[in-house]
Amino acid sequence: MRRIACLLVAIVALCSVIYMPHASGHADDEAAPIFGIKIPPGYRDWKLISVAHEEGNLNDLRALLGNDLAIKAYREGKLPFPDGTIIARLAWSYVPSEENNKAFGRAQSFVAGAVTNVQFMVKDSKKYATTGGWGFAQFKDGKPDPAAALKTCFPCHEPAKAGDFVFTHYAP
Amino acid sequence: MRRIACLLVAIVALCSVIYMPHASGHADDEAAPIFGIKIPPGYRDWKLISVAHEEGNLNDLRALLGNDLAIKAYREGKLPFPDGTIIARLAWSYVPSEENNKAFGRAQSFVAGAVTNVQFMVKDSKKYATTGGWGFAQFKDGKPDPAAALKTCFPCHEPAKAGDFVFTHYAP
Repeated sequence: MRRIACLLVAIVALCSVIYMPHASGHADDEAAPIFGIKIPPGYRDWKLISVAHEEGNLNDLRALLGNDLAIKAYREGKLPFPDGTIIARLAWSYVPSEENNKAFGRAQSFVAGAVTNVQFMVKDSKKYATTGGWGFAQFKDGKPDPAAALKTCFPCHEPAKAGDFVFTHYAP
Repeated sequence: MRRIACLLVAIVALCSVIYMPHASGHADDEAAPIFGIKIPPGYRDWKLISVAHEEGNLNDLRALLGNDLAIKAYREGKLPFPDGTIIARLAWSYVPSEENNKAFGRAQSFVAGAVTNVQFMVKDSKKYATTGGWGFAQFKDGKPDPAAALKTCFPCHEPAKAGDFVFTHYAP
């Protein structure tokens, strides 16, 4: 009986591993330059931190998701984030919804269109000591952005030092 | 050894039950009128379906989260949604972020402010047969909206009949 139980646990664990890259929507595992970050398996299943809208050239709707360490730290209000924290920033083009506007009776509804890119912040206070303990990566269609693009990440995040270099606040 | 393992499982299960209402941010369990829906424990931990922005009187940023049945149906593209599906619509006031705007060097960033309200669609094809198989509820600060407000839900969702009365599409 115990052997069967162990076998079942092993099968379930194996299935989870096989399923995870599919759930993320990316089977690629090319690492981003400088920080060596790969797309974390299963990130699309992570819990929601918050949402945002960027106008201008970005013109997107975005969602911030966090792994369990990120969510725990956010909910407990504990800074700095512990090593192992990963924050994922998903973004989609900002698209008016004709279907929703018809239902509301006025043009007011904007929804997520095509994926623009996905970014990750990975906390490792030793490995990434020179960039506030964070590694940065951005992927488009599963392909990592070049080194030049990633060099702009930390300088941009520096003003958020009081929040451990993270801009996004938790949305209750 | 086996008894200890069982005891541990029981403690973990009990802790999960105790923790869940806290994770949702609501300890209330007052049922909404007409459809008798309560705030589902742990809904704030559910996976992300998509995000949106409503202008006009709503003026919010919103996230759609789904329980496991909802996410599975969305990812498999299967309609109608199975009984037991719950879709949660969270919404926050639409607030410009001065901190983000400084980092971007221009006014372009809008983030989630205070919670406005939370809505749920619960699928039960028998119980809610007269409203497309869906029950509707809206809560503000944990308190359900009155019956009059809920009577407007299904007429508004009717145009989305081809999508099983659900407006939101899954954001990959």
